[in-house]
Amino acid sequence: MISLRAAVLGGGSWGTALAYLLARKGYKVKLWVRREEVASELNTRRENLRYLPGVFLPEGVTATASLEEALKGAEAVIFAVPSHAFREVVRETLPFLPPGAYVINGAKGLEVETRLRLSQVFATEAGEGALDRYVVLSGPSHAEEVAREQPTAVVVASRRWEAAEWAQEFLMCPFFRVYTNPDLVGVELGGALKNIIALGTGICEGIGFGDNAKAALMTRGLTEIARLGVRLGANPLTFTGLAGVGDLIVTCTSRHSRNRRAGWEIGKGKSLEEALAAVGMVVEGVRTTKVAYALAQELGVKMPITVETYKVLFEGLSPLVAAQNLMGRARTREIEEVGYC
Amino acid sequence: MISLRAAVLGGGSWGTALAYLLARKGYKVKLWVRREEVASELNTRRENLRYLPGVFLPEGVTATASLEEALKGAEAVIFAVPSHAFREVVRETLPFLPPGAYVINGAKGLEVETRLRLSQVFATEAGEGALDRYVVLSGPSHAEEVAREQPTAVVVASRRWEAAEWAQEFLMCPFFRVYTNPDLVGVELGGALKNIIALGTGICEGIGFGDNAKAALMTRGLTEIARLGVRLGANPLTFTGLAGVGDLIVTCTSRHSRNRRAGWEIGKGKSLEEALAAVGMVVEGVRTTKVAYALAQELGVKMPITVETYKVLFEGLSPLVAAQNLMGRARTREIEEVGYC
Repeated sequence: MISLRAAVLGGGSWGTALAYLLARKGYKVKLWVRREEVASELNTRRENLRYLPGVFLPEGVTATASLEEALKGAEAVIFAVPSHAFREVVRETLPFLPPGAYVINGAKGLEVETRLRLSQVFATEAGEGALDRYVVLSGPSHAEEVAREQPTAVVVASRRWEAAEWAQEFLMCPFFRVYTNPDLVGVELGGALKNIIALGTGICEGIGFGDNAKAALMTRGLTEIARLGVRLGANPLTFTGLAGVGDLIVTCTSRHSRNRRAGWEIGKGKSLEEALAAVGMVVEGVRTTKVAYALAQELGVKMPITVETYKVLFEGLSPLVAAQNLMGRARTREIEEVGYC
Repeated sequence: MISLRAAVLGGGSWGTALAYLLARKGYKVKLWVRREEVASELNTRRENLRYLPGVFLPEGVTATASLEEALKGAEAVIFAVPSHAFREVVRETLPFLPPGAYVINGAKGLEVETRLRLSQVFATEAGEGALDRYVVLSGPSHAEEVAREQPTAVVVASRRWEAAEWAQEFLMCPFFRVYTNPDLVGVELGGALKNIIALGTGICEGIGFGDNAKAALMTRGLTEIARLGVRLGANPLTFTGLAGVGDLIVTCTSRHSRNRRAGWEIGKGKSLEEALAAVGMVVEGVRTTKVAYALAQELGVKMPITVETYKVLFEGLSPLVAAQNLMGRARTREIEEVGYC
């Protein structure tokens, strides 16, 4: 295979792991980080001590704090920045983006102020036509495990078939299996909305409930995020896939999940502020709950778990009362859209 | 509410927990067990020491070894026997089954010799018309947690709406939430086929793979059991529900799961015989894998995880090679049925 050139934007654990993966495939990789001193440290130490300790960066990776240098000649540009920084980094990137390059976005989330999916954010900055080369990457993928070459399966989606297939070929290797999905909307929403359920699962565990309750919350949570997804144009089956169930499982069962951890603190009786202080990092699901709650109200989509989570987070509702509210709802069907003829 | 009479057949953990639940609702419950001495022990000790220690049986529960006595005047008969004993117990039950009684089946599995779902087994014994009062009960429900009144959500399915709704009302209480689903086939298959994936997940953990691999296996496993299900007449969305994803999550993450435990031993290098000996109890998934493998071959359904699991269990394939086979398959789409227009 011809040696491709890739730019990975973001020196967190996910960006570093993706840079590692691409270099292992033999590509020339530029890893862009915001601060000059971080770039030189990465280049000399060959290790991302802060975000991915213990992983040796292959020779093919060069870190840089210059976007111009990172993007020069890149066939693919991989975004691995926090979702709230996505628009800003897109803006900075555009002047240097090579015309034919594919954009692969590994960030998950919604833009809080506008409630836009990140592909929509990209389109507002780069123009609608640029979506023909835009691909979202999602699925259950702890960065630490990818960088240790543990088997991982992910999904890429794009509105254009060729773009998704190109990204699949570009990323796939023996320890990183990539599936394609034509449902850009569903893949984006799965990755963003699952954080609400991770928070809820954490709350549930914090209260002291068991495995039955946790599985019920995850399953019914999936049902309601799929319901919102369908209302926004997604295919319901996408939520049964890697960006839906897969990512949900990893997020809700992992000890590393900040959302789950924050929920756990709240279930134990802490306030939202205290829980966030205890976690000490951005808890994506808190903002996502706000956005989904607003969307559900606006569009008239039934999302009881999101509503109760919202009330616990922002209105001081006791987690136990929230659980009772959910358990005590009127009897209903599992799949409301499907009935007896 | 009028005090209903229920017969629960089977004194394992699930039968005992259901008897507990129904007595807590104020019903008069007869708990049928095969052996006389077990019945008297339950009646005097008020505790199922072997299968559900620590749970006090409410006064409303009377154990008996007589099917005639158990079934007399019962409005509902709940089967909680192992799937391989289901046909035999149905046969013994029929002479005493009150004409108007509903049958609720809490057993999960397929009949190995005939490859029939348990509702089909019931119909061959009781007649096709008897399915109008037949309901399957499934979902993530560890008996221990139900009997400790931990929040649990399950699903009931029947070919007849009134039967499903009756069972929902009959079973539901503040700690046991019941949903209805019209898809009898899908709910039955979800509960049976998930054990294959639990075995596979155990193997994966035994090898030493991480959370990414486990989530990928569960997700792609769900995809292929749904694929088989659809071929057999199920609604694909049922597999996103409590009998699908929900039960899968509980089985694949629980420390109590025998299927997962057996898989773990195999992943560590043990043979099937050694693994079964180590677990020391029936491992439902081993037989289910055989049935699903045969069905997949016969119907031409692609089930790569089931095929590799079958080869590991019965043909001595190394678990690591099986994993490589799965990771190294040709590039594909996530939802094969859905494509770009």
